[in-house]
Amino acid sequence: METPPPLRLTFILFIIISLFSCSWYSFNLPPALSGESQATAWLYSSKSRVRARPGSVLEIQNHEPRNHMEDVPHHPLDPLTMQEIYKVRTILSTHPPFSPSFPAIHSLSLDEPRKDLVLNWKEGDPLPPRKALVIALLNGQSHVLSVDLDLGLVTSNKINRGSGYPMLTMNDISVALEVALSYKELNKSTVKRGLSPSDVTCVTPSAGWFGPDEEGRRVIKVQCFSNQGTPNFYMRPLEGLTMTVDIDKREVVKFTDSGREIPVPKATNTDYRFKNEKEPLKIKAINPISIEQPLGPSFTVEDRHIVKWANWEFHLKADQRAGIVISRAMLSDAETGVPRSVMYKGFSSELFVPYMDPDENWYFKSYMDAGEFGLGATAMSLVPLNDCPRNSYYMDGIFVSSDGKPFVQPNMICVFERYAGDISWRHSEVPVNGFDIREARPKVTLVARMAASVGNYDYIFDWEFQTDGLVHVTVALSGMLMVKGTPHQTVDQMPSQEAASGPLVSENVIGVVHDHFITFHLDMDIDDTNNTFVKVDLVKEATLPGQSPRKSYLKAKRNIAKTEDDARIKLKLYEPSEFHVINPSRRSRLGNPAGYKIVPGGNAASLLDHLDPPQLRSAFTNNQIWVTPYNRNEQWAGGLFTYQSRGDDTLAVWSARNRAIENKDIVLWYTLGFHHIPCQEDFPVMPTVSSSFQLKPVNFFESNPILKAAPVFESDLPVCRPASSS
Amino acid sequence: METPPPLRLTFILFIIISLFSCSWYSFNLPPALSGESQATAWLYSSKSRVRARPGSVLEIQNHEPRNHMEDVPHHPLDPLTMQEIYKVRTILSTHPPFSPSFPAIHSLSLDEPRKDLVLNWKEGDPLPPRKALVIALLNGQSHVLSVDLDLGLVTSNKINRGSGYPMLTMNDISVALEVALSYKELNKSTVKRGLSPSDVTCVTPSAGWFGPDEEGRRVIKVQCFSNQGTPNFYMRPLEGLTMTVDIDKREVVKFTDSGREIPVPKATNTDYRFKNEKEPLKIKAINPISIEQPLGPSFTVEDRHIVKWANWEFHLKADQRAGIVISRAMLSDAETGVPRSVMYKGFSSELFVPYMDPDENWYFKSYMDAGEFGLGATAMSLVPLNDCPRNSYYMDGIFVSSDGKPFVQPNMICVFERYAGDISWRHSEVPVNGFDIREARPKVTLVARMAASVGNYDYIFDWEFQTDGLVHVTVALSGMLMVKGTPHQTVDQMPSQEAASGPLVSENVIGVVHDHFITFHLDMDIDDTNNTFVKVDLVKEATLPGQSPRKSYLKAKRNIAKTEDDARIKLKLYEPSEFHVINPSRRSRLGNPAGYKIVPGGNAASLLDHLDPPQLRSAFTNNQIWVTPYNRNEQWAGGLFTYQSRGDDTLAVWSARNRAIENKDIVLWYTLGFHHIPCQEDFPVMPTVSSSFQLKPVNFFESNPILKAAPVFESDLPVCRPASSS
Repeated sequence: METPPPLRLTFILFIIISLFSCSWYSFNLPPALSGESQATAWLYSSKSRVRARPGSVLEIQNHEPRNHMEDVPHHPLDPLTMQEIYKVRTILSTHPPFSPSFPAIHSLSLDEPRKDLVLNWKEGDPLPPRKALVIALLNGQSHVLSVDLDLGLVTSNKINRGSGYPMLTMNDISVALEVALSYKELNKSTVKRGLSPSDVTCVTPSAGWFGPDEEGRRVIKVQCFSNQGTPNFYMRPLEGLTMTVDIDKREVVKFTDSGREIPVPKATNTDYRFKNEKEPLKIKAINPISIEQPLGPSFTVEDRHIVKWANWEFHLKADQRAGIVISRAMLSDAETGVPRSVMYKGFSSELFVPYMDPDENWYFKSYMDAGEFGLGATAMSLVPLNDCPRNSYYMDGIFVSSDGKPFVQPNMICVFERYAGDISWRHSEVPVNGFDIREARPKVTLVARMAASVGNYDYIFDWEFQTDGLVHVTVALSGMLMVKGTPHQTVDQMPSQEAASGPLVSENVIGVVHDHFITFHLDMDIDDTNNTFVKVDLVKEATLPGQSPRKSYLKAKRNIAKTEDDARIKLKLYEPSEFHVINPSRRSRLGNPAGYKIVPGGNAASLLDHLDPPQLRSAFTNNQIWVTPYNRNEQWAGGLFTYQSRGDDTLAVWSARNRAIENKDIVLWYTLGFHHIPCQEDFPVMPTVSSSFQLKPVNFFESNPILKAAPVFESDLPVCRPASSS
Repeated sequence: METPPPLRLTFILFIIISLFSCSWYSFNLPPALSGESQATAWLYSSKSRVRARPGSVLEIQNHEPRNHMEDVPHHPLDPLTMQEIYKVRTILSTHPPFSPSFPAIHSLSLDEPRKDLVLNWKEGDPLPPRKALVIALLNGQSHVLSVDLDLGLVTSNKINRGSGYPMLTMNDISVALEVALSYKELNKSTVKRGLSPSDVTCVTPSAGWFGPDEEGRRVIKVQCFSNQGTPNFYMRPLEGLTMTVDIDKREVVKFTDSGREIPVPKATNTDYRFKNEKEPLKIKAINPISIEQPLGPSFTVEDRHIVKWANWEFHLKADQRAGIVISRAMLSDAETGVPRSVMYKGFSSELFVPYMDPDENWYFKSYMDAGEFGLGATAMSLVPLNDCPRNSYYMDGIFVSSDGKPFVQPNMICVFERYAGDISWRHSEVPVNGFDIREARPKVTLVARMAASVGNYDYIFDWEFQTDGLVHVTVALSGMLMVKGTPHQTVDQMPSQEAASGPLVSENVIGVVHDHFITFHLDMDIDDTNNTFVKVDLVKEATLPGQSPRKSYLKAKRNIAKTEDDARIKLKLYEPSEFHVINPSRRSRLGNPAGYKIVPGGNAASLLDHLDPPQLRSAFTNNQIWVTPYNRNEQWAGGLFTYQSRGDDTLAVWSARNRAIENKDIVLWYTLGFHHIPCQEDFPVMPTVSSSFQLKPVNFFESNPILKAAPVFESDLPVCRPASSS
């Protein structure tokens, strides 16, 4: 085990490491970049001064960074600590194939103990053996390694024989950009567009997979933008310019520039930073408003990961690939107070974003952001008071860079109590019947939030817990559009609006139509692992002649899903169903099985051809709901090796095995979709758009579990005065 | 004009009048009720002491009742004032047919001026002539009267020749209950069930319309419940007992009691009143939490009805039938600050609730709550701090009782600013590219809320306005299930669960499956009255051979709706569209037409047979979206005379005329639906379930209108301490 450096050094290390490590794919073109490492490049960058400039107002509100070198694991599901990560690195570096040449580490995280070990573990018990799952790339081969920290050994080392490569590392992106930026043709194209090299910022859209041309090698696309006068380079594409880079050979394998006649959009007023704001918003001012809790929040976070609030308890952690992971979510029984299992593990397994333009510079844009870039890796520090309200608790992510060393993703998750003025239940009676009743109870909830900035887009993930047992999962989208340059300044100049791949959102800027699909892995364990998926169909019945003045009515019909075939579901407004996960062995006093239902909200489906390469790779979006038997190797809907995969390891492939799922440990998968036809309001930063689904108890409780909740009285509430500075 | 009584008297009057007037349909059986008026009956009621009992904790938080006798109208759309209502009553009482025998007033409200007069009116201008629209019933005939207050004349008096009757009055319900409760067979049935007459509370489910049997006369159903030991009589039905009452003849025309072998559910622990709560909720306590605004709210309410907040301005009023009415919603242009029209009028036009049981005691339950009972009429006072947060502004409704006199529905609407910890827009950049950016802006919104307690169910209506121009309309459901008695105590005792009309939710209690459909009238006027409805279809396109490595992509295709046929829309997940209302004459600088789109959220469709009487009457739910040309007589989706109507005056009938709607003054209709399969958690009071839709600007602004919004700093926020009493 390495000696932990002192606090100050750790902080400096964290800064430097995070520059190396945060998986990212955007980069400046420094004037004289040749072979420097990315951190050096950053120091040379013309924009680097921004970091040092005082008055970057939102930064000063940051919480102090925490020292994680002393962290020790307390729970079987606690992520690897910094010390454990260093230890894994040491073990790996002495493992034969990696002994002289240490591999690139693409993933290094806790190999979660077997489920039965976790379920049987109790506080105070020794932890099950701590193991790491490592994905490492050496000489073009993807190794999947199991490392036992107690034994100090690599216990397994398998080489991926399927398609696809591991998640990109920061180093991969750095290499791709270096190679692209030093490619002479790029300079020519830049100058022809009237830009100097320092005006150019490039990003690395994923390559997708489109047949044998780009198979068997790790390639990536590079596209560039003008950052002249704005940090919002996304709105100023060098349209038609695409480089394909072989990351491992460090060469541009394809260069196309078909867009020299397309002007770089001028796009003024795209800087959205408050410190550069010159004029205030032209609306009636809004007085300060805040969620206040003078006695402090009601939740606790024990041992850094166990969140306890009201009748809920769950394990919360940050994962480099999935972002927020909720584990062992337990809800107290309303009668006995005993915690009961609801969900073993819930997280966003993949995020598929296909763009709708078959053009040679656009066809490949079909991001699988979790598997390609990492939702945790791109989840930057939340901004206090603006991303999360006062009284939020912030949790860091402990992640691993490509050299196998740990780094801190600070303030990556926030946890807070929400009161939005909503009502948890109510009833009034008009006094005329003798019952003078006006009862209402406010709704207070607990939210765990993260915001992944996967390049241009920001995805805000909220897991919201209610005292009535409902879990509300929301994804909100903000950030920037991925836009396309066009020669046209106005709609009238366009020969055909319909020929464009999206609406004109600014002069020379097309907002290309695209979709977003977020697939959630929801390992429901209602009271125990043996669960059953029941589709409760609402079916129209016709009455018999003479039976009733009514001609028709709906009947709820329960259909148990025996195998995976029965649980592949496309939502239909005119063939409605409820979707229950029940525990057939746990019955209420009335005999109803304890269950939870998944309640879809607004949704969108992928309409792409099932054989279209992006859809083949993201075939997990072919249905909105799937149910699979629990299999610890089936966590990632697009496969463990998503990058450049051919779709041979997706949820759709697993489900096609049609395994038995009745009265088994089962996993529910839900895909939340958005169609996005951009509009001018989305320029230059999009107001948030959100959608959600719910997990809702169904006969889990004997009756309304919050019937006895107390109302709020004036005397409960705080006494507030305006800020002292006002 | 009558002399306004002094304040104290007004308050007493208000209490008495509201007892007479609040349209309600639930009633106690007093021991010796014969011909007393309902108010007297209430005073006799065994439960009336509840009102007087001290410590009815939520009551003491009430705001003081306001005196409305001095109110004068300031805006053409202001509702009739109390003085105006008295004046209309005086005018009517001298109008020939009503001179000796004053009719029953079923509706008396502002006859809104012609739209052009309202649009041309400016603050300071004299008001357009004040007129009242009166619906009165005399000798079985429904009169629709226009009363000119300035002229002091009835200017028009038409008799309804179509089907249906006006909204029920409190007096109708009182009569129905009196007649039913004095029916001897009821006493027998009550005693046979082991109950004393004072244990019985009855309600009046609507009769629906099912062919010639009950045509040509105003009939209503009456059903009864046991209130023994609980105010939650809804959970204890006298199953199988139904009386059909002819309201005008004051007689029971049909009595059935087929359920004497079905026990009255014992249902303990159904009292939900906090004051009777003996043990606290068994969960970790939640500390006080509150939305605080030490400088006060940022909105103003001018002249009692004009709400101004941030970039929004609208007219807000309470309507006895529709509940909340939003008129003249205007949004400031982000560039010029000039207010621009978004919506002329928005309100919930009808609420259809069909139950799914063809049984003789259930088939008729197909409520049309707005047209039968009134959403405003049943919207009781909101409970401060519990129904609405601190700093809420409360608005009263001024309604009219069946004798033509005004009464106050106090604190019926609340208006408040909401901060829920959400984000209005954000973007982070990883610092490695030189842009050290973490920008986020909190989302603060304005909500106008009402809660209608239409019998057992509570419907919370929220109109939420965002600074980015989005309007979020939410309906949340709480209150009690309409339940059915069953001989069975547990599921095991049931010969077939599927044969029942819903799940067992307590011993001897079936939660009958039902739907809720709320149809909104949305008279969008984007910048002006001439608007066009555009369906933007997302259509899958196949690429040509060799065109692209992609096989498919989506294309947005704009289809202008020429006539009403083109705008009848059933939502389809796999045939997605956006639905825009645009102003073809108002173009952005790029040439995009200014517009708003309606964004459906989770929804449910009616699956009933189109010829089934309830569906025929509520044929407005045959589609989720309709667009009609503006017609001031087409406000109520189920027709002006909804009660016992045959469906000859619904939105579906109007739309079938297939009128031109392109570049016209058009009205958008949206239906929000819920399927409800009850569960034990819904017993004895349901936790709120909600769904929503949005109206969202599309090229209405030139760019993101809130880009310049300021972030929140610690120094902006209040300094709070715990309540002094703690």
